Order: sequence, then C-alpha cells, then structure tokens
Amino acid sequence: VKAELRTLQVREGSYSIYVGHGILSELQVLQPELRSARILVVSDTLVASLWLPTLLEGLSSADVGVLTINPGETNKNQQTLYDIYDHLLQNHYHRDTILIALGGGVIGDITGFTAATYQRGIQFIQVPTTLLAQVDAAIGGKTAINYGVHKNMIGAFYQPAAVWSDLRCLQTLPTRVYQAGWGEIIKYGLLAGGDLWESLSHYLSPNAAPLNDTGLIDLIYQCAAIKVGFVEADVREEASRVLLNLGHTFAHALEALCPEKWLHGEAVAIGLYSAALLSYQLRLLPSSFLEKIKTMIITAGLPYQIPASLDPTALITQMQYDKKIQSGRLRFILLRRPGDCFVESMVPKDVLYDVVSSATCP
Amino acid sequence: VKAELRTLQVREGSYSIYVGHGILSELQVLQPELRSARILVVSDTLVASLWLPTLLEGLSSADVGVLTINPGETNKNQQTLYDIYDHLLQNHYHRDTILIALGGGVIGDITGFTAATYQRGIQFIQVPTTLLAQVDAAIGGKTAINYGVHKNMIGAFYQPAAVWSDLRCLQTLPTRVYQAGWGEIIKYGLLAGGDLWESLSHYLSPNAAPLNDTGLIDLIYQCAAIKVGFVEADVREEASRVLLNLGHTFAHALEALCPEKWLHGEAVAIGLYSAALLSYQLRLLPSSFLEKIKTMIITAGLPYQIPASLDPTALITQMQYDKKIQSGRLRFILLRRPGDCFVESMVPKDVLYDVVSSATCP
Repeated sequence: VKAELRTLQVREGSYSIYVGHGILSELQVLQPELRSARILVVSDTLVASLWLPTLLEGLSSADVGVLTINPGETNKNQQTLYDIYDHLLQNHYHRDTILIALGGGVIGDITGFTAATYQRGIQFIQVPTTLLAQVDAAIGGKTAINYGVHKNMIGAFYQPAAVWSDLRCLQTLPTRVYQAGWGEIIKYGLLAGGDLWESLSHYLSPNAAPLNDTGLIDLIYQCAAIKVGFVEADVREEASRVLLNLGHTFAHALEALCPEKWLHGEAVAIGLYSAALLSYQLRLLPSSFLEKIKTMIITAGLPYQIPASLDPTALITQMQYDKKIQSGRLRFILLRRPGDCFVESMVPKDVLYDVVSSATCP
Repeated sequence: VKAELRTLQVREGSYSIYVGHGILSELQVLQPELRSARILVVSDTLVASLWLPTLLEGLSSADVGVLTINPGETNKNQQTLYDIYDHLLQNHYHRDTILIALGGGVIGDITGFTAATYQRGIQFIQVPTTLLAQVDAAIGGKTAINYGVHKNMIGAFYQPAAVWSDLRCLQTLPTRVYQAGWGEIIKYGLLAGGDLWESLSHYLSPNAAPLNDTGLIDLIYQCAAIKVGFVEADVREEASRVLLNLGHTFAHALEALCPEKWLHGEAVAIGLYSAALLSYQLRLLPSSFLEKIKTMIITAGLPYQIPASLDPTALITQMQYDKKIQSGRLRFILLRRPGDCFVESMVPKDVLYDVVSSATCP
C-alpha cells in the first residue's frame, strides 16, 4: 500500500479498522481472503457513480456483484431491505457471501442489518465514504433500519468483518455532508475530553489553518478508537456504551419530527448543544463550556438551536420512543465538562421543556 | 415446585432449560426476576385459549401484556412480524421488555426474531407447547421468519433467556401434531446413536407400552442436551452444528414446494428416510438400518416417502436455496449408522435424482 495507513484491532468481533488515504482500491491486497469469496457490493447510486470503479479495480480477481439503491435516509426502510433480500435470493447468494457496504451511514446500517439477518447472518465489510460514517456510524456493529418515523427501531448488534475508511472518498462530499461529520467528532471530544478536546478546540477556532490529511487520519483514528473502547466495554449497550448517545435523545426526536430537514450530524450538533444547555440549566456545566461548545458547533458550520417553530410538547412526546428508556424513564446523557459525561434519568420535566422550547439560551 | 423437574444449564447465552410436568404456572417462582419486568406474551389464538390462563396465573404479580396471532406456518412472515413490532411500539414497550413465546415452533421462531431485532435486541423466554418445539425448535437460538416460499430465510442466531418445557401442554395436542415431534426425536436418535437409539428402538417398536411422563421427560431432556452439545460447539453453524440438519435439505424443499401439506416434523421424517435412502444408495448405510428407520418412522405414525406425484427436478431445483450451500455446492448430511453422521458435498446428481423420484425404495 502506497498511502499512509493506520490500523486499529478490535477485540469484539476480532476485526480491523483501517484508516488511510487511497486504500479503497487496495482491499484485496490487504484482505487476501476476498479473492476467493463471492461478494456483493451494496451502494447508493450517488456514491457508486463516484467510487465504485475504484473499489472494483482493487477487487478485480474476485467474484463481485453490485446492487445500488437510492440515496437518502428515507430509503433506510423495510422496502429497501426487501429489495436487497430479493436480489440476494434471486441471484443465489449463499451463506458464504460477503457484503461490502460502500457509502455513508444509511448504506452501512441497512447493509449491516441485511448481513445480520439474511440466512441468519453473513459477513459484511464497512467501507464508509462519509466523514460521519468513518468516525462513528461504521464502527461498533450497530445495524438498523427505520420503522415508520422511528429511527433505527429495528436492528441488531452485528460486527463487521472489517472497516475501511479511505480519506480520498471525503474529497467528493458536498460541503454540508462533510461538515455534518463534525457533529459526531465534537461528540467524541466532549466524551473523551483531554487531548482530543484540545485538538478540536484548536481546529474549530475561527481562522484555524485547514486540517491536512495526516491530521484528519489522526482525528478519524482517535474517534474510532474512543468508540471501540466503549463498545468493547459494553457491546450490547447495557451500561457504559449508552454514553455514546450524548446528544442523541434530542437528535433522534428532531429527525423523527422533521424527516429530511437535517442530516444526522446536524441533528446531533443541535442535540449536543441541547444536552449542554440542559446540563447548564441543571447547574452542572459552567457557562464558559456551554459558550465554547456553541462556538465550536458554529465554527464547524453546523446548527445548534432547536427551531422556535417546533412544538416543544411534540418533541418531548416523540422522545418517549427513545431506545434508552428504562423502567419507563427517559435517560439523558449530561456533562459536567468535556471528558466527564454521565447518565441521568431524573431530569425535571419543566427544565427539559425550557431547553427544548429554546427560549432560554443564555 | 410440586412436579418433577429436570434442568439443563446452557453455557452459550448462559440460560437454563427446564423440563417438567405442570411447571407452566411456576415461571415466576423459578425466575423471580420476572416479577419486576414488563412482559409481553406472544401466542397464537389456539394455544392461548388452552394455556394462556395457566401461564398468567403464575405471572400474576408482574406487568404482563398479551398479543395473539393466527396459528400456522403461513403466518410466520413479515406481516406478522410487523404486527408484533407495531404492538410493541404503540404500547411503548422499551428495551427492558421480556417477550414470552407461548406456542410451537412458529411462535418461538417469530417471537425470537422479534426479540432479536426490536430495538436491536430484547430478552425472550421460550415456552414451547408442542413436542417438536420442546425437543428441537425452542433450543439453540435459531430464530427466523419465512420469506416468500423460502423457509427460515430471514433470521438470527439469538439465544433465549430461558426455555420452559411443560409436558402438561402436550396433553392438548392433536395426535398428528404430537406425532410430528417424533420426527425430530428420531433425528436425535440417528445423530447420537447409543442409549437414545436403543430407547427409541424400544419405544418405536410395534406393541411397545406407551411412554409414561418420566420416560418422556427423560427423552425431551436427552434431545435438548444433544442439541445443546452441538450448539455450544458451534453456535453459528460454521462447522459441526450443520449435522443437526440431518433430513432437513429434503424437508425444507418439500415444505417450500407443498406449503401446508406437511407439518415440519412430518417433512423431517420423509427427509430422514430420504437421507437414509441416499446413504444406502451410496453404499454407506446397510439395508438393515434403512429398514429399521423406515419401521420406526411408520410406527411413530409419520410419512416416510416423497410422493410420486412430486416432480423430482422441481424438488432438486428448490434445494438450490438451501442455507447449507457452500462454494456453490449442496451439502447433505449422510449416515453410516446411528451415531455416525457426516457432511457430504459430492453427492452425484443421478443418485440424488433416483432418491427424490422415490422409485428406488428397496
């Protein structure tokens, strides 16, 4: 491999995460077992038009089929799932097939869930092509489809056989999609604190120099490593892994109420600020951090406020479908400072209402 | 607990299998954690009318809901799965819910798959009410729905939190359904050989005395223990677990071609004889064993022959959807004698054709 490459070994599911520049066409070199497998690449029409030829170039000696679906979160549903099942059945793909998910979080989630359930489970490889998928969605084995308005309600914990994050794919991302990835990166900064938080404070300050490839590889690697740490400690999200949901109680409800209004990373950015604001209102987070988080989100080109037009009661009602509910109580991830987050199931309703009605920004 | 009870500890998934008479109303006594959980019992209308009151009696102090679906293999499909998802969502069942599958293999399979995929996985308990489910279907964590004509094509390996096999439920089984369970029992006799085979030779000889409860508890326990042994050695069926498919390459194709003609255990009985006949034709199994297997199947009140009216080519074509296919080759489980089964991927097409055209019975 010509390019710089960082590799992370994941114990849970014993697979590797590769992060590098130009590795997309090198899959078969680095995973020789692909040569003898039957492979189906699942992608969306947009990503396929940009990166499929490069991927196929590197898989030239293997038995490879391709299935493209329409892009977008609204297609992460049962109908698309059935289209993939039908294609697999009609073309006699058996249990020894490897699926390759070439695309963003939508492609990774639905291809992963297909792999988890087709013939009770076949192998799959994540090839995330968005920044958000590289730092978050492709890592950790969460697979799912949406069910009606309920995001990721049907799914499985199912680990990939490998994750391939090629920086080159980020070059063709629309600016808005690239920026959305920073929503999750900021989340990891808030969860981990320390060096990552310091780096982000630097990168996301006004007039900072643009990140070079080495810096970005390092950032993607760090986010992946933090996530892997949480996943290995608690793969089925029965305890500490729930912290990875920082900002997501808000984000999922926002996405359910306003489908297609926000990219996931944008909803997460609003969710992060909302979680910070909630923590501030509960006198847990100093206002200086709240301000800093806001500045970082804005500098990343992301939204931070819940729109005033949104009915706060509808938003709170939607939260009752949150997967983190335990013994009938919503659980929020709150923070005292970057690197110090915790789960709280006793948030007073009036404070929550204040935060989501957004009139209380300091 | 008043009744005789045998308990099997399963390492894979760390759960217990309980086999006894009259234990259905004792669930909460033996699993005190059920007292504080939110529970949804999934059953079919037929089983619910017979055994739901007894089950609920023993769960009186818990928060229990009930959902009944129409009985029958044809309802083990996506639509029923969605009905269960919808019910869970509309009634705000969260990730800390426990599903209880009260019924036969159909209820266990679809409830288990619901549990495997709702909110990426919730707990479930198997309460098998048919003999077939008690000796086979409820053990080992295979969950699935059918997909079009393709049996169990969509599913997951997902272990239950417990299995409760109450012999009392067998009293209300129609004779044909009870007898179908013996198809899988004979399979375990062929797989394990030894004492189990000897017992079965005794029980399934003409004019044998009827089995008493202690004998049946022992038989169910033995079959469960054999299956658990295979599952623990190879939970995802990547190697030795495939032997549990003895007779099933034929059975699944028969069921796909003639939906509702046979109960699963009946199709398995035909499949076992077909596998034995194939082994005999390949000069692996002596004719004395072939004859004995035929006699046992007949004595159990089960069919053994593929109907002459069935197109052999159609049956072989249907087998191409078998989940055991590897590198494009069908794999059959063959036998040299009871207790000596193995996987064979090189069965000559003409011999297979002879066997499924059924004209070659010795």
